[in-house]
Amino acid sequence: MKTIVHNDFILIVYKDKRYLKRVDTDRAFHGKGGILTFNELIGKSYGIRVGQYEVYEPTLEDLIMYGVRRETQIVYPKDGAYICCKLNAKNGSRIMEIGAGSGAMTLLFSRATGPQGFVISFEKEERHFANAKRNIERFLEWNNVHLFHGDGTEYNGGEVDAAFIDVREPWLSVDTVRRHLKKSGMLGMIVPTTNQITECLKSLDGFGDIEVLEILLRKYKTIAERVRPEDRMVAHTGYLIFGRKLDGYSTPVTK
Amino acid sequence: MKTIVHNDFILIVYKDKRYLKRVDTDRAFHGKGGILTFNELIGKSYGIRVGQYEVYEPTLEDLIMYGVRRETQIVYPKDGAYICCKLNAKNGSRIMEIGAGSGAMTLLFSRATGPQGFVISFEKEERHFANAKRNIERFLEWNNVHLFHGDGTEYNGGEVDAAFIDVREPWLSVDTVRRHLKKSGMLGMIVPTTNQITECLKSLDGFGDIEVLEILLRKYKTIAERVRPEDRMVAHTGYLIFGRKLDGYSTPVTK
Amino acid sequence: MKTIVHNDFILIVYKDKRYLKRVDTDRAFHGKGGILTFNELIGKSYGIRVGQYEVYEPTLEDLIMYGVRRETQIVYPKDGAYICCKLNAKNGSRIMEIGAGSGAMTLLFSRATGPQGFVISFEKEERHFANAKRNIERFLEWNNVHLFHGDGTEYNGGEVDAAFIDVREPWLSVDTVRRHLKKSGMLGMIVPTTNQITECLKSLDGFGDIEVLEILLRKYKTIAERVRPEDRMVAHTGYLIFGRKLDGYSTPVTK
Amino acid sequence: MKTIVHNDFILIVYKDKRYLKRVDTDRAFHGKGGILTFNELIGKSYGIRVGQYEVYEPTLEDLIMYGVRRETQIVYPKDGAYICCKLNAKNGSRIMEIGAGSGAMTLLFSRATGPQGFVISFEKEERHFANAKRNIERFLEWNNVHLFHGDGTEYNGGEVDAAFIDVREPWLSVDTVRRHLKKSGMLGMIVPTTNQITECLKSLDGFGDIEVLEILLRKYKTIAERVRPEDRMVAHTGYLIFGRKLDGYSTPVTK
Repeated sequence: MKTIVHNDFILIVYKDKRYLKRVDTDRAFHGKGGILTFNELIGKSYGIRVGQYEVYEPTLEDLIMYGVRRETQIVYPKDGAYICCKLNAKNGSRIMEIGAGSGAMTLLFSRATGPQGFVISFEKEERHFANAKRNIERFLEWNNVHLFHGDGTEYNGGEVDAAFIDVREPWLSVDTVRRHLKKSGMLGMIVPTTNQITECLKSLDGFGDIEVLEILLRKYKTIAERVRPEDRMVAHTGYLIFGRKLDGYSTPVTK
Repeated sequence: MKTIVHNDFILIVYKDKRYLKRVDTDRAFHGKGGILTFNELIGKSYGIRVGQYEVYEPTLEDLIMYGVRRETQIVYPKDGAYICCKLNAKNGSRIMEIGAGSGAMTLLFSRATGPQGFVISFEKEERHFANAKRNIERFLEWNNVHLFHGDGTEYNGGEVDAAFIDVREPWLSVDTVRRHLKKSGMLGMIVPTTNQITECLKSLDGFGDIEVLEILLRKYKTIAERVRPEDRMVAHTGYLIFGRKLDGYSTPVTK
Repeated sequence: MKTIVHNDFILIVYKDKRYLKRVDTDRAFHGKGGILTFNELIGKSYGIRVGQYEVYEPTLEDLIMYGVRRETQIVYPKDGAYICCKLNAKNGSRIMEIGAGSGAMTLLFSRATGPQGFVISFEKEERHFANAKRNIERFLEWNNVHLFHGDGTEYNGGEVDAAFIDVREPWLSVDTVRRHLKKSGMLGMIVPTTNQITECLKSLDGFGDIEVLEILLRKYKTIAERVRPEDRMVAHTGYLIFGRKLDGYSTPVTK
Repeated sequence: MKTIVHNDFILIVYKDKRYLKRVDTDRAFHGKGGILTFNELIGKSYGIRVGQYEVYEPTLEDLIMYGVRRETQIVYPKDGAYICCKLNAKNGSRIMEIGAGSGAMTLLFSRATGPQGFVISFEKEERHFANAKRNIERFLEWNNVHLFHGDGTEYNGGEVDAAFIDVREPWLSVDTVRRHLKKSGMLGMIVPTTNQITECLKSLDGFGDIEVLEILLRKYKTIAERVRPEDRMVAHTGYLIFGRKLDGYSTPVTK
């Protein structure tokens, strides 16, 4: 049985609030449910009630939602999980990511590609690069992420199985991706606006089976006698765009 | 470069239709885009245009959506991907599944738990068990699935990291799962009706941080100048219910 | 051209905020866009910019959303407009409402039934009755609402064309409504929970063509170059249930 | 009690199917529930069971959904009801409509504006004009619709309280509408694509409090013990755009 030790990440749940904390034996968590001194957790198992709090071992979703420091809009797990699925990411997959942002999607790709795969990720904004680096180092499960400060054009490594672009103008990175993506490999993109969907669609020469979609997650209240949706929900995170690389595309000269 | 060989699964795309086929050099695909003789694909790469068709290497989502033989309602990849995420499934995870159904979710768990993890899956309907077995053998990536003909009550193996229940009356399997699930481990359930949500919620003694939600996938048309949602969509697959196992639960005697 | 006079209701818009106010020549509106002295509005037309504010003549939706004093959850105009449509409410219609609540739906029915129709509305909670009365008197367009303090069982007037029930246990009012509703007349109900849907459906003996539905309103940002949904939305107001009265129903004795 | 006579419209319901028919004493309805001879309905009330069918008096929604002959995409009642609400349409309102299409929205406006209001509607496509005319004559409740063959630019009548544009390029009609719309009056538009939203938003000089939204209607199955959404739904009809006319707008010369 896994027990809590110093420096562990823990998820503290109080009513409908969740807090991700790192156990520091000298400190305590001060919340609406009172004070939780970390020292009293040491050696205990996860999945326990302490006072008014519940303490769990965080999942990767918890780490991303409550632990990752956000300097950009992150890819939400509801989107990220499906992106991994569409990109066919599995243990052994080689994935290229243009636009690490805060590193949330990078962490999801890292998990999906496992110990035998890898993620090559690029972030050109220096500030975001530093933040992504910090987040990835903090929460990484497998040592399979290669984070670069750049936009991917400098990449001269081998072929990748799938690629994902999450930058303001994804269409500017399509050529880069196309050079490295294996035939039949999936390309994914995420954009917040419909205007960007239009631009992305125009840039997808050489890709087939194009899809555009969005994922909505609707939460419900959990009282058995009063089942009903929450009053409010996250109504938009981003539009997802996917395509599969087709053979026989030759880069246009004047484009 | 991977090339197409006899017996490979291929995804054939024609306009907005997708077909999953197995290459048989003696046969051909007859569709609205004409005849595609499999023989001419041999030795070619994936990601090609052949006549009016595009031919791709199928992703696991393709295999599930277009290849799995359905004798039950399957868990859709949009739900299954998020279920894997919530259950924190990763290479090395041990997952228990009550109700394999047609095996679609089993395949997703198999992928997520990778070569170092495993899935112990139960299906009590003999007919569904046989079908799930067939589908899993057909599409399995890692040899990490243990499929049993039963309801899980007979299981006397070790602790699991997460559990998933997909049967008509999930509340009847909660006790079974609770016995084997590690503390803090995630339990997931999927049900089609709101009445079942109510019953499930009543059965979750010993679990905390309960969540009920649904995932909606809305597709868009892919013409750059006319971006708009599809006219119709899948409006419902199932409600997802999650909880985390709490310590200190003692099975009620008279319940 | 209609000009603003003392005591008029006005809608003040500042950025994405809306305020419903009554013009009082001695007073002013103090908002984030500065002070708007009502006196300077007198004699001006609606649809004007005054400093950083825009001033409009409120629609009934504005009056309901920003003017009606809410002591209960109100029926939102997105639901109320469709309810009027389903109930076939038009100038001349006679509508019975059980559960006036705060009077928002009553105002919508009043508008729909016009000068030649009427609404008979019941509210049994004394406090809500007083509030509904105040709201209706304040915002009524036609003198066609008869508001009673009761639950409708005391009604012995004539037949109505349609009926609407908005109380905690609508199924307890179905018999009352059935007695007064004309054959083929529409019955509508609104409930927040799925458990209530179940109870309502069980109570609809003598009604045919039953429908259950919900209306979702998703707002978008209004910048031409960055069209996208709002980040958050109202995810749930209520489930709507409709049925049409069938002939030949005889009230069960022991039910 | 209203009874069925020759030439009446009736709504026939069989299971989840609805048919709008006109009673012709010499004819019969042949459906999956058998033959329904219209002659046997004469003199009976609405709201009756005849064999396996239910027969109701149609609402305006029924007439629009099942009776209006569609040569264009119609405005659905779920959208139309809310459009009437946003446009503050009530008995006495004067509404201008550019693009009658098949006349569905015209019928909703006609109902909303009642015996004391009116609708001035324009349709420039000759074929659609003829169809709209036929539909409106067939289903009109009040004699308050003025349908013209044109695009509205020829209109030289009085001021209107609200306006609605439903044509392929609504932005080309904004100037026309602005000339006739009273100050503070609401303008509504409906477009199917996001690209059109962008163009519409660019054209709304002189309008304030702009809103863009969509209305989704999700239907549920009606079995009390198995409450759940329908498997599939209409996922998109159109985006609605609204604005309120602001004073002080002078038509730009070079625009």
